[in-house]
Amino acid sequence: MTAIGGLTKFFRFSRSAHVLLRRSNTLNSNTKSNILITVNCDKRQFTTATKQFQNKKDILLKEVNKMSSYTTVEKGAPDSTNYSIYFQNEEGHAISPLHDIPLYANEEKTIYNMVVEIPRWTNAKMEISLKNPLNPIKQDIKKGKLRYVANCFPHKGYIWNYGAFPQTWENPDHIELSTGCKGDNDPIDVLEIGYRVAQRGEVVQVKILGTVALIDEGETDWKIIAIDIRDPLAEKLNDICDIYKHCPGLLRATVEWFKIYKIPDGKPENQFAFNGDPKDAQFAIKVVSETHNFWKGLVDQSLNAGSISCATTTVKNSPYLINQEDADKILAEAPEGGDVQDVSDTVDKWHFIHLG
Amino acid sequence: MTAIGGLTKFFRFSRSAHVLLRRSNTLNSNTKSNILITVNCDKRQFTTATKQFQNKKDILLKEVNKMSSYTTVEKGAPDSTNYSIYFQNEEGHAISPLHDIPLYANEEKTIYNMVVEIPRWTNAKMEISLKNPLNPIKQDIKKGKLRYVANCFPHKGYIWNYGAFPQTWENPDHIELSTGCKGDNDPIDVLEIGYRVAQRGEVVQVKILGTVALIDEGETDWKIIAIDIRDPLAEKLNDICDIYKHCPGLLRATVEWFKIYKIPDGKPENQFAFNGDPKDAQFAIKVVSETHNFWKGLVDQSLNAGSISCATTTVKNSPYLINQEDADKILAEAPEGGDVQDVSDTVDKWHFIHLG
Repeated sequence: MTAIGGLTKFFRFSRSAHVLLRRSNTLNSNTKSNILITVNCDKRQFTTATKQFQNKKDILLKEVNKMSSYTTVEKGAPDSTNYSIYFQNEEGHAISPLHDIPLYANEEKTIYNMVVEIPRWTNAKMEISLKNPLNPIKQDIKKGKLRYVANCFPHKGYIWNYGAFPQTWENPDHIELSTGCKGDNDPIDVLEIGYRVAQRGEVVQVKILGTVALIDEGETDWKIIAIDIRDPLAEKLNDICDIYKHCPGLLRATVEWFKIYKIPDGKPENQFAFNGDPKDAQFAIKVVSETHNFWKGLVDQSLNAGSISCATTTVKNSPYLINQEDADKILAEAPEGGDVQDVSDTVDKWHFIHLG
Repeated sequence: MTAIGGLTKFFRFSRSAHVLLRRSNTLNSNTKSNILITVNCDKRQFTTATKQFQNKKDILLKEVNKMSSYTTVEKGAPDSTNYSIYFQNEEGHAISPLHDIPLYANEEKTIYNMVVEIPRWTNAKMEISLKNPLNPIKQDIKKGKLRYVANCFPHKGYIWNYGAFPQTWENPDHIELSTGCKGDNDPIDVLEIGYRVAQRGEVVQVKILGTVALIDEGETDWKIIAIDIRDPLAEKLNDICDIYKHCPGLLRATVEWFKIYKIPDGKPENQFAFNGDPKDAQFAIKVVSETHNFWKGLVDQSLNAGSISCATTTVKNSPYLINQEDADKILAEAPEGGDVQDVSDTVDKWHFIHLG
């Protein structure tokens, strides 16, 4: 254990727990000369992990970024169509991850909450369910079968922690000026590029670095590129150009991944707006802000929600507001069990795709 | 379920069980017009899986390639330095995977037994222990820590099922003519490129497709490229050039992987003989045959074994022959428990390596 100098120090305690010490110069200007400790662990682990720092005078113990206060509850048998991951708030009450987790994680609106649907290197196509009340995470189903995304060489599953920003909606009735295409009727997708493999249903605080615009069957499908603010690289990554520098090849691989990922399932190559060139953080932040406004229209019923379940426990002005008791009842009554589908070992197959 | 035509049919039952039906035209010339069934499952699964075929007249139920008859026994706590995977033969007696599993799996010597040490996409550096009696698979240790190989973008862990051919030895006292370098004192390494993720300690029957010659700190370290004979692609892959055709990018990625995989640990880029160009199947088969001969010298004591444990239960002419009782005793007395090391989440980190 070394003394803390001017640089970030990263202490690993286990696969699931680390402590990051760094001089605060971005997150909180009031503590500029202090050492901040950010932790990725539960409270018990935090106590254990920080014990050895408590006698060091040059360290101010400060838990700036404690683990998300949201927890998840699994219902239904894994690998069945019943399988659902519901969300609860700090008090253990059921909430919707789409409507009841705030998009912005700090007052300055520089940090965002991201809901992780698909951990890096996994294949199961998990997503926030739009039609089910309280919008649990469920596995996409194609022709009655649980959907797994193919591995396209050299990639293994998803190559980022993949998820969505809560309280956003890509409005299908709105033609996006920059792409000339309509929204895809989903919350906006996020690619989190930190080193850590996140958990399904984890709520991660991220900062936005840029975006690419996938055009999927004529619809705009923004992929926001972001990084966990706890990541040791997060201080160095502030905009899209920083990714070229610190993660060479990642943006090219990202575009390639989306172009080819449906080809093994018999679909054509996907297209990108802007010739596949990523847009910068400022642009991305504006896009997210717009989709946040569309979401507001969704939950105040000024926009047509279609089949989307908008039940919310927190949006006070929403006609879809339900009380906590009813929300908890939805969770309590979610089906258990279900027919378990065998996961074929061909989920592990590597597909070798030629692009023309 | 469709009738069987002239082509290979592949039926998937679960992640761990499949049945492959095909006209025999390569494996066994005596049954040219029959349908062969190869299975990747245990006996119970085989019965279940083949029930539905038993009434079909055009199918001859023939178990040509039943699951390996070798089983493994784990000793010591996982993630501790005690952790060891021992091998047993069909009768449940302890054997050495290095000395007591035959290199050749058929009389014609066209099929080889491969011992899988590291399943595809995993990071733990598991290897047949040379110095421990009966040569269990153990995790390599560096500076007291269990060793994990870094992920070099875009790769996740090992990109093949990685293992070794039994009854081979790269003789460190022999200068290999083609590379001008000495052997690396290990059994010869195998990269199995089939679609399936194998299990640690699995004995897989493979055919040889070619080889690349890594030069590791002045030592020749052949990497034999092979494919599980049960793989649906196996019939189409017979030599190195077939890999370019059916798995484009895989050979380039293979060479790149070995060049850079130790760089995150502070080591220099690895070098390859033959400018990194792969050698064909015929060349590879000859190399394996030579290392098999060196192994023979090892176990008949005509070559110096150094610290390698050569205890064998099957090599009748070997001075290292031990009886089955003693072998079973070694397994029975292998230490249990051990200090479990936390696996850091940085095992999941992606390293972005620039090559000059």
